[in-house]
Amino acid sequence: MVNNYELELLYEGKAKKVYKYNNYKLLIEFKDDVTAFNGLKKNNIINKGKINKQISSHFFELLNKKGINTHFVRDYDDKSFIAKWTNLIPLEVIVRNYAAGSFCKRYGVKKGYKFEFPLVEFSLKNDELGDPMITSEAILLLKLTSEEILNEIISISKKVNEILSRYLAEVGIILVDFKLEFGLSKEDNQLLLIDEISPDTCRFWDAHTMESFDKDVYREDKGDLITAYTEILGRLKI
Amino acid sequence: MVNNYELELLYEGKAKKVYKYNNYKLLIEFKDDVTAFNGLKKNNIINKGKINKQISSHFFELLNKKGINTHFVRDYDDKSFIAKWTNLIPLEVIVRNYAAGSFCKRYGVKKGYKFEFPLVEFSLKNDELGDPMITSEAILLLKLTSEEILNEIISISKKVNEILSRYLAEVGIILVDFKLEFGLSKEDNQLLLIDEISPDTCRFWDAHTMESFDKDVYREDKGDLITAYTEILGRLKI
Ligand SMILES: Nc1ncnc2c1ncn2[C@@H]1O[C@H](COP(=O)(O)OP(=O)(O)O)[C@@H](O)[C@H]1O
Ligand SMILES: Nc1ncnc2c1ncn2[C@@H]1O[C@H](COP(=O)(O)OP(=O)(O)O)[C@@H](O)[C@H]1O
Ligand SMILES: [Mg+2]
Ligand SMILES: [Mg+2]
Repeated sequence: MVNNYELELLYEGKAKKVYKYNNYKLLIEFKDDVTAFNGLKKNNIINKGKINKQISSHFFELLNKKGINTHFVRDYDDKSFIAKWTNLIPLEVIVRNYAAGSFCKRYGVKKGYKFEFPLVEFSLKNDELGDPMITSEAILLLKLTSEEILNEIISISKKVNEILSRYLAEVGIILVDFKLEFGLSKEDNQLLLIDEISPDTCRFWDAHTMESFDKDVYREDKGDLITAYTEILGRLKI
Repeated sequence: MVNNYELELLYEGKAKKVYKYNNYKLLIEFKDDVTAFNGLKKNNIINKGKINKQISSHFFELLNKKGINTHFVRDYDDKSFIAKWTNLIPLEVIVRNYAAGSFCKRYGVKKGYKFEFPLVEFSLKNDELGDPMITSEAILLLKLTSEEILNEIISISKKVNEILSRYLAEVGIILVDFKLEFGLSKEDNQLLLIDEISPDTCRFWDAHTMESFDKDVYREDKGDLITAYTEILGRLKI
């Protein structure tokens, strides 16, 4: 398959296109598509891809500097970056500092309830099954990864939470929750933080007004998505 | 409210009626009602209550003898027993030795997949929310119980699994999975195993034919429920 990049398109997902850059690297292109409710709601919003790419690159660079091993190598153009190609671990790791979204719905808890410690949850990354929640024990029983790697994933996720929460607090933003993905580098089998870190995959609230600057603006029809996402760019001085 | 027992009816659930026997004790009556899919399927099956009471009493007596603290005090009549009254911990503890039921559906796993170690899962006991799965960490964050009690619950549940699995294996039955509930005794705050242990709350498979002798017979319309439940009575020589 040939395209803008004259690279082989390996996968087109809901938010990104993934191309083979070379044997060990990918080019990841951020699309303008936005979806919610497991694809039930869908739109195309001009510039969304660019903004999410910029925010993602910014966070990955920060994390790389802080000693977290991420897939991010370098920016390629205004809507794509080069990343280390990994064998994906089919999990979504959700870290929550405050109750929001599916957690509130699932347990009937009030939005904004502050947790005494960050909650790390897992989902099986499987669209057909609706990304069902899964416990650490079931992850091991189903051999989705080893106990050693799972423990590393938990500890890295908590570290990422600390780094990003502190960083965002300085610009008046609360990191409410976020989703991470991990993979093992094709080149040297190293565990890497992959995918994206953007307003599509995090909840960002203004520390004073509790206003959302994330995909909830789209999910809940609370205003203009580009305005909200641009606020994050502005606060981060990107 | 007055009734057959001339006792105050405290609660009528899907499978049992709970009466106040005295300040520290309940009378628990097993109904002939059977429900599935969170109450969507419902029938009345003569003798089901009696059989479940007999099996439950039998298992509780066995567990009491083996040093597990249960709410069971003594049989009252053919469809009720006297139990220690507790403050319920709003959790359902599910122990799984093989994949079956909701686990298979949730993760797309084949029925009968044998786990390398027993899986302990939790649900929030809340019919309106559909008894959602909950992790140990979320249980603590939502203050459903203390860490100390939660650890005790996990260790007792595993012990119950060992005792019952071994006991049933001797009569050619595989304990596939089961649900437990716990409460704190009103009299002395002791953690007790409560509720029932019956073919309504366990999956029992014939060790050779893999035939079900439990509520799956009803859920999946696989034959006569009383015949299946009576098979358990027979094997246990009750
Ligand atoms: N470094 C990487 N190595 C391998 N796969 C990756 C990497 N980074 C992201 N991916 C995967 O590429 C896909 C990105 O596209 P996306 O639109 O997010 O897909 P999806 O709709 O499946 O979430 C995801 O499946 C993600 O897990
Ligand atoms: N020893 C006990 N102390 C307090 N509550 C109990 C005890 N044993 C059982 N229960 C509760 O009594 C009810 C039994 O009725 P059941 O028909 O199973 O109800 P449900 O439909 O809510 O599961 C359950 O809510 C159960 O948790
Ligand atoms: Mg994705
Ligand atoms: Mg019940």
